[in-house]
Amino acid sequence: MIPRDHPRYRSLTVREALAAAARSGLVSLEGLAAHGRGEAFDYLIGERTTESAAAAERLAAKLIISAKRPVISVNGNCAALAAQEIANLQKVTGAAVEVNLFHRTEDRMRQVTDHLVAHGVKVLTGTCERLVPLAHDRGLCLPEGIGSADLILVALEDGDRCEALRKMGRIVIAIDLNPLSRTARLATLTIVDELTRALPAITAFCETERAGDLSEVADPIDNKKFLADALREMRERLI
Amino acid sequence: MIPRDHPRYRSLTVREALAAAARSGLVSLEGLAAHGRGEAFDYLIGERTTESAAAAERLAAKLIISAKRPVISVNGNCAALAAQEIANLQKVTGAAVEVNLFHRTEDRMRQVTDHLVAHGVKVLTGTCERLVPLAHDRGLCLPEGIGSADLILVALEDGDRCEALRKMGRIVIAIDLNPLSRTARLATLTIVDELTRALPAITAFCETERAGDLSEVADPIDNKKFLADALREMRERLI
Repeated sequence: MIPRDHPRYRSLTVREALAAAARSGLVSLEGLAAHGRGEAFDYLIGERTTESAAAAERLAAKLIISAKRPVISVNGNCAALAAQEIANLQKVTGAAVEVNLFHRTEDRMRQVTDHLVAHGVKVLTGTCERLVPLAHDRGLCLPEGIGSADLILVALEDGDRCEALRKMGRIVIAIDLNPLSRTARLATLTIVDELTRALPAITAFCETERAGDLSEVADPIDNKKFLADALREMRERLI
Repeated sequence: MIPRDHPRYRSLTVREALAAAARSGLVSLEGLAAHGRGEAFDYLIGERTTESAAAAERLAAKLIISAKRPVISVNGNCAALAAQEIANLQKVTGAAVEVNLFHRTEDRMRQVTDHLVAHGVKVLTGTCERLVPLAHDRGLCLPEGIGSADLILVALEDGDRCEALRKMGRIVIAIDLNPLSRTARLATLTIVDELTRALPAITAFCETERAGDLSEVADPIDNKKFLADALREMRERLI
């Protein structure tokens, strides 16, 4: 038990919740370590949505509602932390939700899917094919989901799948707290914000933004500026 | 399986090793998340021992060999990552090693102890008493170990035990990758370096440094300077 007077009580209880999700198999043990990595970067942006991240979230909303076949790619950490927030974003946008796991087993695929469904998410299912060229199970996806998506929202992702999707010409929106990560640098648009803050913000913007032509919305995006903004925030915290 | 061509292969395999230690119970699930947090800060100092950290390691060596009753406090992550390095430091300094766990159960105490012993560490055992005033099991320690130590080396520790030990007048050397943490700010001397780099460096300096009067060695230590150095390194990385 973490004592309530512990100065990092909130962060430690979120960590305990993820640890519980790991005990049940929803989150992989490696996913727990990855969560900690994110915690550090969140700490450096002050555990709040910066002005620049909010602007990226508004743009993300515009991209999602402009896409013909947007897909939200969900892994174990994502599902454990934000199943409800994913359901809400799906309701507003009609985006497909597909489960894609780094540490993939049939058991975990089912468990993550069940957890999402229990929170009201409609999850794509079917027979996976290796449509993304990766020497790894993350290359497996559904032909009617990520396989034919024009836009993919990925969160808490690692770099090489993002790279492969971009090479396939897809628009990738990444939610990633590390502005130096390969995912952050390679995505069309990177939101440097914590998942459970970013998703509701995107959902809210989806209700106020207007759709446009997807490539015309994507083209002028200066992702480097968003990354530079995040780096500056972090440097200011490190003084 | 992590593909060998993955750009973060090394970091991910260390993470897998810790995950395996978590499966066996040596490392707590929360400890896995804490490891990830450390990974992020290590990444920010370039995953190397900075010049300033090396200077802190030299000072740490001088403090340890000057102490009458130095104790190395070891938790699950510490043991899983660096049992051999702890054994080597103990051989050179004769320091006592005591196990102190955040997520303490009798099973884990025994498991961590057995793991250390298997790597040649002499581990203090006995009947613990709550000699450190904390509303938490970390307050439990051995009267002949941390209870009567003049110097305690802590690694991968969280803040309030460090604070309590300092209030008791003990000299605390912390190995902590986060220069903003309470442990880092409250310790007598903080080494901002990764554990398996820091311990061998301290051990090597123990063989070349000369002992002095402990309080005279400790008094002029300007820990804020070491922290400022680490923060500057991290800021430079975030450009």
